Parts: sequence; C-alpha cells; structure tokens
Amino acid sequence: MNMQGFKETDTKKYNFPKVGIGLIGYGFMGKAHTNAYKKLSFFSWPPVAIPELVAVCGLLENEAQTQEAAYRYGYKGYYNDWNLLIKDPRINLIDNCTPDDVHCEPCIAAVEAGKHIMCEKPLAMTVADAKRMYDAARKAKVKHMLGHNYRFIPAVRLAREMIQNGVIGKIYEFRGRYLQSVGAGPENLIEDVWYASGTQSGINLGIGCHIIDLARFLVSEIKTVSGIQKTFNSSRLNKNNNSESIKADETNFSIVEFENGAVGSIESSGISAGRLNQHTWEINGSNGSIYWDLEDLNHLYVWLKNTAANAVSGFTKVSVTDPKNPFASLSWPPGHNIGWENGHINEIAHLLDCIVNNKSIEPYGATFYDGYIIQLIMDRIRESSERGKKLEINPGEV
Amino acid sequence: MNMQGFKETDTKKYNFPKVGIGLIGYGFMGKAHTNAYKKLSFFSWPPVAIPELVAVCGLLENEAQTQEAAYRYGYKGYYNDWNLLIKDPRINLIDNCTPDDVHCEPCIAAVEAGKHIMCEKPLAMTVADAKRMYDAARKAKVKHMLGHNYRFIPAVRLAREMIQNGVIGKIYEFRGRYLQSVGAGPENLIEDVWYASGTQSGINLGIGCHIIDLARFLVSEIKTVSGIQKTFNSSRLNKNNNSESIKADETNFSIVEFENGAVGSIESSGISAGRLNQHTWEINGSNGSIYWDLEDLNHLYVWLKNTAANAVSGFTKVSVTDPKNPFASLSWPPGHNIGWENGHINEIAHLLDCIVNNKSIEPYGATFYDGYIIQLIMDRIRESSERGKKLEINPGEV
Amino acid sequence: MNMQGFKETDTKKYNFPKVGIGLIGYGFMGKAHTNAYKKLSFFSWPPVAIPELVAVCGLLENEAQTQEAAYRYGYKGYYNDWNLLIKDPRINLIDNCTPDDVHCEPCIAAVEAGKHIMCEKPLAMTVADAKRMYDAARKAKVKHMLGHNYRFIPAVRLAREMIQNGVIGKIYEFRGRYLQSVGAGPENLIEDVWYASGTQSGINLGIGCHIIDLARFLVSEIKTVSGIQKTFNSSRLNKNNNSESIKADETNFSIVEFENGAVGSIESSGISAGRLNQHTWEINGSNGSIYWDLEDLNHLYVWLKNTAANAVSGFTKVSVTDPKNPFASLSWPPGHNIGWENGHINEIAHLLDCIVNNKSIEPYGATFYDGYIIQLIMDRIRESSERGKKLEINPGEV
Amino acid sequence: MNMQGFKETDTKKYNFPKVGIGLIGYGFMGKAHTNAYKKLSFFSWPPVAIPELVAVCGLLENEAQTQEAAYRYGYKGYYNDWNLLIKDPRINLIDNCTPDDVHCEPCIAAVEAGKHIMCEKPLAMTVADAKRMYDAARKAKVKHMLGHNYRFIPAVRLAREMIQNGVIGKIYEFRGRYLQSVGAGPENLIEDVWYASGTQSGINLGIGCHIIDLARFLVSEIKTVSGIQKTFNSSRLNKNNNSESIKADETNFSIVEFENGAVGSIESSGISAGRLNQHTWEINGSNGSIYWDLEDLNHLYVWLKNTAANAVSGFTKVSVTDPKNPFASLSWPPGHNIGWENGHINEIAHLLDCIVNNKSIEPYGATFYDGYIIQLIMDRIRESSERGKKLEINPGEV
Repeated sequence: MNMQGFKETDTKKYNFPKVGIGLIGYGFMGKAHTNAYKKLSFFSWPPVAIPELVAVCGLLENEAQTQEAAYRYGYKGYYNDWNLLIKDPRINLIDNCTPDDVHCEPCIAAVEAGKHIMCEKPLAMTVADAKRMYDAARKAKVKHMLGHNYRFIPAVRLAREMIQNGVIGKIYEFRGRYLQSVGAGPENLIEDVWYASGTQSGINLGIGCHIIDLARFLVSEIKTVSGIQKTFNSSRLNKNNNSESIKADETNFSIVEFENGAVGSIESSGISAGRLNQHTWEINGSNGSIYWDLEDLNHLYVWLKNTAANAVSGFTKVSVTDPKNPFASLSWPPGHNIGWENGHINEIAHLLDCIVNNKSIEPYGATFYDGYIIQLIMDRIRESSERGKKLEINPGEV
Repeated sequence: MNMQGFKETDTKKYNFPKVGIGLIGYGFMGKAHTNAYKKLSFFSWPPVAIPELVAVCGLLENEAQTQEAAYRYGYKGYYNDWNLLIKDPRINLIDNCTPDDVHCEPCIAAVEAGKHIMCEKPLAMTVADAKRMYDAARKAKVKHMLGHNYRFIPAVRLAREMIQNGVIGKIYEFRGRYLQSVGAGPENLIEDVWYASGTQSGINLGIGCHIIDLARFLVSEIKTVSGIQKTFNSSRLNKNNNSESIKADETNFSIVEFENGAVGSIESSGISAGRLNQHTWEINGSNGSIYWDLEDLNHLYVWLKNTAANAVSGFTKVSVTDPKNPFASLSWPPGHNIGWENGHINEIAHLLDCIVNNKSIEPYGATFYDGYIIQLIMDRIRESSERGKKLEINPGEV
Repeated sequence: MNMQGFKETDTKKYNFPKVGIGLIGYGFMGKAHTNAYKKLSFFSWPPVAIPELVAVCGLLENEAQTQEAAYRYGYKGYYNDWNLLIKDPRINLIDNCTPDDVHCEPCIAAVEAGKHIMCEKPLAMTVADAKRMYDAARKAKVKHMLGHNYRFIPAVRLAREMIQNGVIGKIYEFRGRYLQSVGAGPENLIEDVWYASGTQSGINLGIGCHIIDLARFLVSEIKTVSGIQKTFNSSRLNKNNNSESIKADETNFSIVEFENGAVGSIESSGISAGRLNQHTWEINGSNGSIYWDLEDLNHLYVWLKNTAANAVSGFTKVSVTDPKNPFASLSWPPGHNIGWENGHINEIAHLLDCIVNNKSIEPYGATFYDGYIIQLIMDRIRESSERGKKLEINPGEV
Repeated sequence: MNMQGFKETDTKKYNFPKVGIGLIGYGFMGKAHTNAYKKLSFFSWPPVAIPELVAVCGLLENEAQTQEAAYRYGYKGYYNDWNLLIKDPRINLIDNCTPDDVHCEPCIAAVEAGKHIMCEKPLAMTVADAKRMYDAARKAKVKHMLGHNYRFIPAVRLAREMIQNGVIGKIYEFRGRYLQSVGAGPENLIEDVWYASGTQSGINLGIGCHIIDLARFLVSEIKTVSGIQKTFNSSRLNKNNNSESIKADETNFSIVEFENGAVGSIESSGISAGRLNQHTWEINGSNGSIYWDLEDLNHLYVWLKNTAANAVSGFTKVSVTDPKNPFASLSWPPGHNIGWENGHINEIAHLLDCIVNNKSIEPYGATFYDGYIIQLIMDRIRESSERGKKLEINPGEV
C-alpha cells in the first residue's frame, strides 16, 4: 500500500494528565457528558486533561444496549453492575447519569471507594438521601460535583462575575423561571410527560432545581420560602389507553428572601404551553440590572447606571462569545454561537481541572452540598404549599 | 374681509348626546383624561357622545394654575372648591384626578349628589375608605368607574376575548409584573421618587394595583395571597439635602390562587433598574399561552395548540392594530401604532357610552367594586408579608 | 341654575401667537393633521402657537361630508373650492392633505397668494410638477413644508443628533426599507390596495419617498442610484369582479452612493406579506451603528465603540421617551410610549414655530426642495430600472 | 488489577460503512470539520458512516504543528505534502480546509486521483479557477461538495422545504445580508481584519458567498446583478506599525433579478459596527414571508396567510428543534438549542451519506458547480460596480 510520506502520530510525545472515566447510564445525559469528554480532548489546546473513557455501566437486563453504548461512545468496555464498575482501578471519576432514583447508592459507594464523583441533578429523591450523599462525599474528601450545567454557560458566568465585582451594586430583586410545555395538554400521554412518568420526580426536582441553583449562585443563600405547588392533571392516559394517577407536581410558584437581603420569585412549570425550555432570570440591583434566557443563551442583557452618561441608556444585548468570555477556549470565534451542550462541556472541563490540579469545585461548580441545600429548599416549597406558611431554610449542622 | 365662499359650520345640525364634565385635578392624569375627552369628539364618527368640558377644579391656593388649566384644556370655567363643583347642574360626570388621598371624599360627595363618577386608581388609601366609596356609589345607582386604563389597550382586550372564548383552554398559570426603576438608585432624591414622596402611597398602591386588576380581569377572582413587601431605601435625601425617612413599600412579590383554580405570581417594584414601565403578564392554559408588555403595547404574543398542525408552532407576534381590533374606530389604520394614551381614550369612550346609553360599566371597565377588592388584596399582601402566612381574600357582604 | 363658585375662563388673559389654518382634504391625513393642531393647543405649555381652525375645504359634490368634517374637526366653516379658501384673509397656513394628484395646483396658488404651505408627501406626481412647486414656494418666500413626519419621531431625531455630533463617526453604510403587505395576495381587490387604486401612485411615491427622505436626512445627499422597480400583479379584480390593469410599481430595490462617500440600499414594497408598516433603517459608521423600526417607534438601537470598555458591548435598546428627548414637552412621561401620530404632532409644532418665530424649516423639517429632490431620485430609480444603468442625481440649477 | 465484571468493547461486532478522511489544513475550519467527523460517529445511531481519520496535512515548514494537530484531532498520522496525501489509498475523501488561495490545485489533483472532495468556500480566488475545479470534479465523477454549511442549519432547511412545498406561494422578494464588524474601526490592525490580511480575499469572497448561496438555494438561479463594491479603509497599520495598502473589498451592495421572476438585494460587509455575525435573509411571497438570522439560528420566523383565519396573524417564532426538524437525529431534544457548529455537522453527515450510499449531493448540498456560479456572480458584482451597469450571469456551457 502506497503511503509514501505518511508519518504516524506519535502519541507518546504528549503527556497530558489523564482521568479515567466510568459512566453509569448512557441516555440523554450520558450522551451529553460523553460528548463533553470527547470535545475536551481536542477543542482547546493544551487540553486541561485527557479523559480516558474506561467503561460505561448499565443494567444486566440491558446488556446489549450497554455494549452498544460502549462501542458508540468509545468506551473501552462496559459493566453490568455499578458495584463492580466503581472498583475498576483505572477509573478516577464516576459519572452518574442514571434516573433520579438511582443517584444515591452508587454515588455513596463510589466516594467510599475513593472515586471522584459527578452526579446529574437533582442530587436525590429526598432530603435525607441528599444529606447522606453529601456527608459521604465530604467524608471521603473526593471531588464531588452536581450537574448544574447552566452555571457554565458563558453568559451566566459573566453575570456572576459582574455581580461579584459589584457592577450592579446591592442586589434588590431576583426573578427566576424555568418553564416547559410538555404537560400543558391534558391529552398528552403519560409517557410523553417526562416529569410525570418514570420516577415521577415532578417539575421542581426535574427543572426547578436549576433555577434555585442559579438563584443561590448569582444572588446569595436563600433564607425563607413561601410556595404554591400544584398538579392540575392528576391523571393521564398511558399508551395502552389506561388512566394512571399522577402525584408529581406540575407547577411551582415561590417567593423567597435571601441572606443578603434581596427578595425574589422562583417558578418552575411543565404546563406552560409554548415554552419549550424557557429558563430565565432577571436580577435588579442598585446600579444595574441583568437578565438572561436559555432560549437565547449566547446573550446577556445588561443595564448599567453609568452608561446613562452617554445619553443612550437601555438594556444592552451582549453577545458573550468574545475572547473575554471565560470559556472562550472552549467556544468558537466571536459571533459563532454555541449551543446548549456547551454548558456541559465547560462544566466537565472545570471538574477535570479540579481533579488533576486539586482545585476546589466551588464556587463555580455545584457540589453535593449545594445539592443538599437545593433539595431542602424544594422540600420546604412543598411543605410551605401544604401549610400556607413561610418557612425558613435550616440546613442544620453540615 | 374677503371670505367669499365661506360657509359657517352649522353646529345645531348635529345632535349627539352630551355629557357635562367636571374635572378635579389637572396634573398628569387630568391631562390624560382631558386629552381623551377632546379626542373622542372627533376621532371616531359618529362620536359615542360629545363631552362638554364644563369646569376644572383645583385648590384655592392654586387659583392661578387652575385658571390657566381651564384655558389650556378648554374648560368653560373653574372652581376652587370641589364641594361647589359637584353641585354644578351642567355637570353629569365628576372625574377625580387628584392625588390618592383626595379620592375618597369628593367621590362620595359626588355620587351622593347624583353625579356619575370616574376616579383614578388606586380607589383609596385604605380598605375602609374603598369600601365606603363603593357602598356610596352602589347606593347612588350612578355609573362608577375606576381608572384601570390598561384593560382598554386593544391587545389586552383581545387577550380577554380569547380567554373568554376558550381559545387558550383551562387557565393554569398567571405571571404578572409591573416594574419601574425610579427608586433603584439610593442616591435619587425623594422628590424624584414618586411612590416615596407626596402621599407616600408606595409601589403597590401606585402601580401594583394595575397588575392585580389585570389578573382579575383576565383570569378570575383571587382567592388567596402570600406576599413579601419590602422597602430597601428607608430614607432618602430631599432636595434640601435633608434625610427623610420612608415607609412606602418599594417592591412586592406575591403568589396567588385564583377562584377558577389557576395559580400565579404578581409582582410590582419601583427599584428595578432599567425598567421604565414594564407592565407585563403571561397566561398559560391547556390550549395555549398569551403574553403582553406595556413597553410593546401594540402587540400580543400568542401560542395556540392547533397552529402546530402547520408545522410552524411558536409564539406569534400579533399587531393588534387591525380592523378587527375592538377599538379600531379609535385607532389609526393597521400598523400605525397607538401610544399609551389610547388606553385612557378607549376607557373614557366606554364610560361615556355607559352613561348615555345606560350600559353596564362591567365587565370591561373597572368599577368601585373592583377598586375595593383590589384594595383588599393589596392590604392582604402587606399583612401576609408581616405575618409570613397565606391569607384569604374575604370581601365580606358586598 | 346653581353655579355658585364657578368662574368663567378668561380667554383674553392669554395672548399666544395664533396661526389661522385652512385645510384641504379631511381624510386620513386631514385627520392626522387636525389631531396635531388640537393637541398642540394644550399638550405643552406655553404652546408654541394657537392654531385657529378657520376652514376645511372639499369638493363641491361632497359638500355634505365637508360640512360634517368642519363640525367634527372643529373648523369654523368650510369651502367647496380651494381657489376661494386660499384667499381667506384669516388663514395664514394652507395645509394640503389631498390625494397626490391634487398637490400641485393648490400649493402653487397658495404660495402665490402669500400663504405658508404644508403639503403631504409625495410633493407631486412628476418631477416637473415638483420643480414648479418648489420654484413657486421659494419665490414666494413663504414657509413651505412637506409631510415627512418620520423625521419628527423622537428616536429618529436622536439618531440625527448623534450622527451630527459625530458619535457614530464616519458613515459607511445605510440600509433602509419601507415595507407593507397590502398587495401581497394577488386575490386582494384593487380597492383594498391603496397604491394601485385611486391615483395609482405606486409604492415608491406612496412610501418609498419616506425612506429616501430619511436617508438624506440622516446620511447626506444621494449622488447615484441603481434600481429595480417591478409590478408582479399587473391586474386585479375590482369589487365589481372586473379585472383592472395596474401600472403602479409594487416593489423597489435600489442601491445608492451618497455625497459623503457612504453607500447603501433603499427598498420599498407593498407586497411583503406580514409587514404591516415596517419602516426601518440601519446606519453603520466607523464608531458605531444605529437602527430603528417604525413598528417599535419608541426605541432606538445603538452600538457605540467606547461602550466596549465596560466589557458589555452590544446594541443598546434606548427608550427615547425621557426628558432629554427633544420632543419631551409633546410626549408623556418616560416609559409611556407615544404612537405613530406623534410624528405629525411634532412636525406641525415645528412648522408653527417656524411661522410665528420666522425660523427656518430646515434642517429638521422637509421643504419643497426636499420634495423635488426626492421626486427626482424616485424618477431616476424608475429610469435606472428601465435602462439597467446607474444614474446620477442632477438637480440642475435650483 | 481488579477489573472483575469488565467486558471489553467488541468493535468487530459493528459493521458500519467507513470513509477514510484526509484533511488539508487544521485551522478554524479544519477544527470545525474534524469536530463534525467525531460527532457523527456517536451522535445519531446507527451512524450514517464511520469516518476514519487517516491523516492531516500541513506545510513542511510547520511539521511540528501538523504533528500536534494529528494527535490533537485524533488522526492516525500526517503528511507534509498534499501531493502525497491524496495518493494514500486508505483515504476516500479529501477535505480541503486551507486558505482560499490553496483551494484550487489540491482539489483538482484530488479528484483526478479519484478521491471524493470537500472544499471550504469560496471555491477559488478567480472564476477561471473555479471553472477548472468544477470541470475536473465533474469529469472525475466523484462526489464534490463546497462548504456552504448554512444550508444545513435546521431553520434554513425548513425554510427551503416550506418554499418548495409552495407554502409561501410565488416568491416576490429576497433580502439577504451577511454583516460583520471586524473592519469597522480604521484603527484596527490589518492582522485583526481577516478579509484584508492573508489572501486579502475581501468580504464578498469571504462571507458574501454564503448569502449568495442561500439566495440561490432558497429562491432560484440569479439572472442579473447590479452592484456597488467599496473599500473605505484603503490602508491600515500592521502590528509593526507600518501602513499597508488594502485592495480587498469591505462592503457590497447588490440588487438582483432571479430566474423565477423574484427580485432582491444581497449585501455583505465587514465594516458594520456591532454586527458580529449577522447573516440574515427574508423572503416574501404571495402567501407568506419567512426570515432567519444566524445570530438566532434556532428560530425561523414565519408569516402565513391562512393563519389569519384565527384572528391571530403575525410572524411566528418557530423553534426548529423539534422532532420534525430534518436534522433531529443530530440535534439535542426540543428547546435545547444547537450552535453554529451544527451546520457543519449536518453538512458532513450529508456528504458521507452521499458517498457511502451513492446519493446526489444536490439539491441539499452545494457542489463545485454552485461554487463556480457563485464565483461568477461575485465577479459580476465587482464588474457591475466598476461599470455602473446591470450585468447578466452567463455561465456559458457547463
């Protein structure tokens, strides 16, 4: 075969830190995380680390699919039992992308086995489980990260930096919403309504956790909540045309007080017709205001008092795609918009950087501590709705 | 003087119903209402009625300004005492555009004198006064209307009609805000912060009442509220450089349950930097969603389930300027946008129509009953904020 | 009759300059101008002048409507012949709101009679007529103004001031469009397609003139044009179901060179489905860019190089409703949007100011000179389209 | 090492068609294409083909970087000479991502060597070269594709399908722009102005080609052009502070006639301050209008006549992220926005599908024929600008 002039790639020439990955679950989130691992290896240069895709893990009864996922995603092999996966010595990081009700046990086992842990949100199904997970992770002294990917959208990070730098002054108000539409029609089959089927986690656990996370990330700790939680469609037909009853919450309205004195509203819904994925917030301070929307994720809208000096005062639509963007090395050139997936890419870049350089996941990344607090807040929203009272968030000794 | 061919206008030829107007207060609102009276006389044809501008009324100590206002606005004359104004037999309608704390007594006296009454919002400073006003007006069997002008913006009326016709299905959610920025900077002088100076009515009485009104107009009666009300800037300098303490509320966040089962949030603020006049709401139902914003008042944004059939599903930006617009006769041709003032014009057209044709102010116009209920809701928001409890709205026997 | 306390308005106390108005034509534009005269008398204070509505003029065969218009609009009387109207000594200003083909003769007669003249756009049906009108007006040394009302929208004026002050630097590019949709459907009856019925003026004369005017107002004189002019629907049914042939242009695309070196595009169309009244332009310069759209007329979108220093670079949505707005005295308070009609109100305020204070209509107002030049440009676009050549604009000796 | 339960991935189990890739150039475009190859292997399932990254090729003097690129991007090896690369029998597809002036020779050599060819736009630096490339590719009977990636943005494809299906009726008008801002400031160094440095290709070759391509893709063949092409900044400082003269065009305005009778405007600029990457077009037809903007790439704005029946007529903002999206298998779930890169991903998926299944690149993909025609159009715009004449596009015998 004529391959004159061909020079083989000398992979030994490069010596980047490596992180062995063990992935549990290969669905939507498993794909999003694997995509991040793959992109990190070549997108920015030099790479923060080279993720080695060691193994993916699924259920024994789904072995064929797990095997296929291993091939498809480029993992060296697979496991049918996460208890075995977490013992694989080649693996440094367990990445838990399973359904919500499978987050707890594998995460605890993984950290107890000394593995770093990445877990998709919400941390758990209950406050108690979330607390156990956080306690285990803290005790194990491993890196523990929770998949609040929206912290890693460049526009959100820029907002955080502006706030931290005092650009918008004292924060008065926060208004946050995460709205989807999948359950708006009562005729929608239960299988098509993710929050009502499967683990029946409901809307607050499913997406409300994200906007609660950003409220805490951008403003400060939440001190009190008053909430209304409601399920309008308490039953739906399934694809076999049988009616199933539904307990999962469909909509949440809450008003909150923050520790820094700010006040605000936090809403999440799965029944907001026409809202495919409206994750939006606005922050109003003594010097300015900022707002953002996931459906227009490359832009941040900013009003600053001092711009009024120019006689052109108004909200400025900032394209957060320029070289000053903190994630510029993981983005395309200015004006070449990134997509939803980049939140995950930037998030996992941060995680690997923390692992290989022993940096702190906080404050930019969400930890299991954040997961526990968010779980507590969601539980208090539910309780407030039942009792008609404002409730305090008391994390207890943590 | 050569005026060959000139034919004098024969005013006796036209015989439209007339309504004699007595205006109390000639500031911003007095100007907006007078503008409406003037436009009604010629804008649509035939006019619903011809308002006769009989007299304007001000304070005795401001007689020069009152006299000037009478000339400027085209009133035949003026009074220095509203007690006398309301007795003028040429006057059918008393229009109260005074500061909030002067709404109560003249309105009661006017209706007791058998005059129809138009009062700017908020109806009163207290629930008790609002109740007295409503009771008096009801007893007097006159037309009583409260200045909730935003009901009469064409896009808002179209929304109401779509909802009433079932187009958006069962209403699940309401999200309403009325945000202004005038108090955002702590350095702003008290005289420049309308809600904190003068009657110190605060933000909820000042603008929150409007979004509460639209919530009730568009969705249904409000059953419960939980609220947070806060004043961040508890003192400000005045123009003499002295500090004055402020009790007026600056921001309100509340969550509500409606009688028809819908849930929602209602917010108002005077400290939302960059928000000049953001009066916006969204309604989500089982068949569709609608939203609107006063800063883009000619458009209504609509998502309807059945449009999905075309494979082009999304929010449609509807220009409510076409001939089907219920206020088309008081608007310019399609695509020729109207301004904020048209809410008042359409509102007063409705009022005059009700007077001369003995029609009901309700359901399109707000009455003193609405004013009383809105006052009760605002009071409960305040109380809920103090007590940290969800409260019911109990109008009592009305 | 009990009118105790009533004091009659002493109209003699006020002594504002007066301008006697004679209006020819009482349709859409006659209504818009009359509305302006009426508002000017009371909106700002003291008023620039008090317009006295002396007479309206219509055709003899429409006497009943003319009489009605006189009553409706508040004119003292009416004429059936404009030759007589222009001789009325009480009239200082003739306001020509007739169809396009009636602009020429009354305007020339009016200025020859020494009257100031206001004429709706386009100035004439032909370049020759436009030149005659301009020559007559110049010779008569009266104030002559052409109804290019969009110059008087606050956002447009602010743009002009920013450009004149060098804020956007050297102008490179202009992109302007005026699009409407009324003719998009071939099935639309000829009576419903304004540009194809009546005088059959076509789209360029009807609305293209406005965007050409703003190009010259904002950038500089136009030096060359290359154009495409086209009529897709060369016949339409009328309401009697007969087909009528149509010569009026339906769409215009042109590219232009300006005297200051800038280049640009100017487009107008009556067949752009969905575009009710999209009158929009963007100007790009060495230091910044500005754009505006009539369907969002209260806002100006501005990008300035030096704002980049703040790390928040982007287009700023400026609400041109604040007290710095040059037309603030004729507007409502900040954030209370004005409508389309305010362009006319501000325009006529300028005209009356020029008349009573002997100021120059230029540079803010359009004169008959502008009308002549715009007519020439439109004619050259037509000719360029026919000949496939770039043509120079040579006004000749004017 | 304890790896109990680990099962190695059996790569032989899967037998997907493979395409051997040889990449020339590893800069911005080489990265974008490699990213596409990598994503295709796992994003959708089963994959259309498995791209095998055989070799990357760079200049001999840059061997270190080429070697690094091979490692970074995952190619098996590299070449220092494209003449050798194109002979590698493992390679089926040569992907030319070099600077514009290196497109011609390697592409011709590659197709003559029987390789399929992918070339970035613009096809060549001159019409003559473009013709040679097209002739060679046609003669070689290989698949030849030109990198007009925006055809493969889902919203653009949906627009094409709607147009082809007659949804918007007869097309009247096209308005297209591709604006960037990099050259707006005369003080910008020549190295920072891509279109003026390096090959000095200019704006029309650099980005104007994209909007010309979409005009042809969406409307029909272009029959005539009239153009203005201009360079405002005819010299710039380089980073050594020396002035360099610049011939590259900075802005292009053209008006066009299409073969199907439509008319339109096509503009491209590198000096539109504030416009990072505004690639936008609008199409107006007898039944509807559509517009799109690259800076909001997930949405298509659609106005259709028949929606007026619902009394809610207006432009609908369609999120083209749903399962009906033709690229849904290469996208995330609905409402999870894709980024700029997805155009390339979808484009290369189409190319591989055409190669392995012997399908036609046309009509969805751009071929070297399209490249030749676009080059001809750009040349005629230049010539039209020089001669001040409308010119016909005559491809001659092709």
